Amino acid sequence: MKIAVLGYGTVGSGVVEVIRRNKDSIAKRAGEEIDIKYVLDLRDFPGDPVQDILVHDYEQIVNDPEVGIIVEVMGGVEPAYTFVKRALLAGKSVCTSNKELVARHGAELLEIAKERALNFLFEASVGGGIPIIRPLNQSITADEIEEITGILNGTTNFILTKMRDDGCSFEDALKEAQSLGYAERNPAADVEGFDACRKLAILTSLAYGMHVSFEEIQTEGITNITAADIAYAKKFDMAIKLFASSRKVGDNIFALVAPKMVGVNNPLYTVNGVYNAILVHGNVLGDVMFYGSGAGKLPTASAVVSDVVDATKHKHVNIMQIWSTKKLDLASNEGLVNNFFVRLPKDERKTAWDRLEILKTALLDDYPNEFAILTSPMSEKEFAEKTEGMHVISYIRAQA
Amino acid sequence: MKIAVLGYGTVGSGVVEVIRRNKDSIAKRAGEEIDIKYVLDLRDFPGDPVQDILVHDYEQIVNDPEVGIIVEVMGGVEPAYTFVKRALLAGKSVCTSNKELVARHGAELLEIAKERALNFLFEASVGGGIPIIRPLNQSITADEIEEITGILNGTTNFILTKMRDDGCSFEDALKEAQSLGYAERNPAADVEGFDACRKLAILTSLAYGMHVSFEEIQTEGITNITAADIAYAKKFDMAIKLFASSRKVGDNIFALVAPKMVGVNNPLYTVNGVYNAILVHGNVLGDVMFYGSGAGKLPTASAVVSDVVDATKHKHVNIMQIWSTKKLDLASNEGLVNNFFVRLPKDERKTAWDRLEILKTALLDDYPNEFAILTSPMSEKEFAEKTEGMHVISYIRAQA
Repeated sequence: MKIAVLGYGTVGSGVVEVIRRNKDSIAKRAGEEIDIKYVLDLRDFPGDPVQDILVHDYEQIVNDPEVGIIVEVMGGVEPAYTFVKRALLAGKSVCTSNKELVARHGAELLEIAKERALNFLFEASVGGGIPIIRPLNQSITADEIEEITGILNGTTNFILTKMRDDGCSFEDALKEAQSLGYAERNPAADVEGFDACRKLAILTSLAYGMHVSFEEIQTEGITNITAADIAYAKKFDMAIKLFASSRKVGDNIFALVAPKMVGVNNPLYTVNGVYNAILVHGNVLGDVMFYGSGAGKLPTASAVVSDVVDATKHKHVNIMQIWSTKKLDLASNEGLVNNFFVRLPKDERKTAWDRLEILKTALLDDYPNEFAILTSPMSEKEFAEKTEGMHVISYIRAQA
Repeated sequence: MKIAVLGYGTVGSGVVEVIRRNKDSIAKRAGEEIDIKYVLDLRDFPGDPVQDILVHDYEQIVNDPEVGIIVEVMGGVEPAYTFVKRALLAGKSVCTSNKELVARHGAELLEIAKERALNFLFEASVGGGIPIIRPLNQSITADEIEEITGILNGTTNFILTKMRDDGCSFEDALKEAQSLGYAERNPAADVEGFDACRKLAILTSLAYGMHVSFEEIQTEGITNITAADIAYAKKFDMAIKLFASSRKVGDNIFALVAPKMVGVNNPLYTVNGVYNAILVHGNVLGDVMFYGSGAGKLPTASAVVSDVVDATKHKHVNIMQIWSTKKLDLASNEGLVNNFFVRLPKDERKTAWDRLEILKTALLDDYPNEFAILTSPMSEKEFAEKTEGMHVISYIRAQA
């Protein structure tokens, strides 16, 4: 099998390295050798072994009938979308790590692949090296999926873990993440939750078989989480995580990316640092969790190459995916039910007890003018109504 | 797709329930309706809806050309083996939850299935509802697998968790497990590690593509674990788990089922109660972990039915498995390297410090005549040599 790799950045060079390093075991798994015929990049890499197979013009790749699979690891919507679509129309399967592309055009590209008995695979687009797309597509097939909740962004999880371990502020934890290379100079895509949002759109579309527009998913990042919030979480024996979550309740499907405070009984409680994890709840299966490195050159490349192996094994057979182009209408999150963690000034004490059902309270010496509570479960709408006019210092959804 | 279910016990009745309850979503995933034409059981079930399709004679099933898939959930090697082999020879795919059958005859049955472009699937044989067989076979294909470590037996994990939570003895925790239905009246298969051993044989065979004889896997249970061991583990901030583990070091493949003491940094540390988890370490992927309900009627049935869906989608296509009939020769565990937790009487103190490299020590008021140590890593052979003649109260392999 001759393949081409579009983009020789971090993931692209990882793909080349993995295919070369594990050549024999990959050939055994795929049933034949995988040979990289081209690498496409605008840059040159003098001295790098890839220089010999480097091309600058996509036409050379897409017009070469020998190339059976195209690996797209450039990132971003364009020109990735144009290249991928042309590859499929030219009869080549595509494996990609590109979450922006998949979240935006996944349904359409899957449809083209299906019509032509090709494959459009994207294991690496969510959870890096963690197998989650293929398990959702092929393993958890006996269940009605009632919930998918993921810690899908390693940068924010690192920051929240750091804040908890060191008691530092969001800004200091972000600086640390940046100096370690875990966060970009412009960290918005991570810390505002946009990255997790795209990944949640992909998982939710796969789980329910219809297309979720990521723009419609309510998305809150972690920029407002303070050292005080973290201190209260510790006091409650809980942890704050950025959850990307979709839930099916009756006929309603809710989706939300937002920080959540959870206790030790939640399997995601112990997922720390740059690790990712995805919890899937099926109506007969109960909870299963998938855990591992959510990013990084080699883990992500491992997932991309596993797709190349699968595409090689299924040369003229489309591996069915139930993600159709039909749009999934998300329910309004007004109806979404959670516990709430709420910080209030001391003079709101009476109002709080009058209006809210309170499960737990906490006082911290460092914050003498306020108190914090954990409420019983209520809908977002109910919470908004009950706290109207109250001076809420901050609140975080919780699972008590 | 017409199927037959062999055995209407716990898992069999779960399979019937799952297929009926999730009929629509399963049909969508499989591409057609799954219809249970027969249930085979020696017993009758008057009043049960299954009574209408109940048969007592396997001939009726195996000779019916309409039946495309046979679900074997009887357990035990015979008559399961005979039935399954005949099913494959008659051109029917087989899905089974039967770990004894798969561990003993998996390689042969896979070969027959492959020759006939059928499928022999066994997702439910390891880890109950946790997707692990399919991910090993289809997802983790770009890696050389360097380690698989599982908590593969819920009964023993429940007992060890109970001993830790309550400080009780093995016997008392076992009684509790029995009264809750988590342990059999004769608990040997679980507590002696035999069940975990068979599951490890299956995972190791799949990971390395050759047949591992479960009889050759060194297997130690948890019957010798005492309240004192658990108390020391707590003191060290560690936990004792029954690990079923295979490791590839150079050209050697080691396999061992035995209790192990691990710290909070091991992702399996937090796997408690009846839950199962499997950690896979790939040479490029790093660690991934799969977590969920390792047993139970509906989770196990969910895994069986996911195999039925897969077999339906691959009617005349064998889903490649690389488990050949070639025998895998395990390396002698003499060369296997671990830390060791060791309890010694006080008068062995000098000898211990002379002979062993000691990382940590602990003293407990409740056990005034002894002390415990954590050693640096050494091979089993080296440990045996160094402690020869010493009065070791107990030892447990550890990961410090």
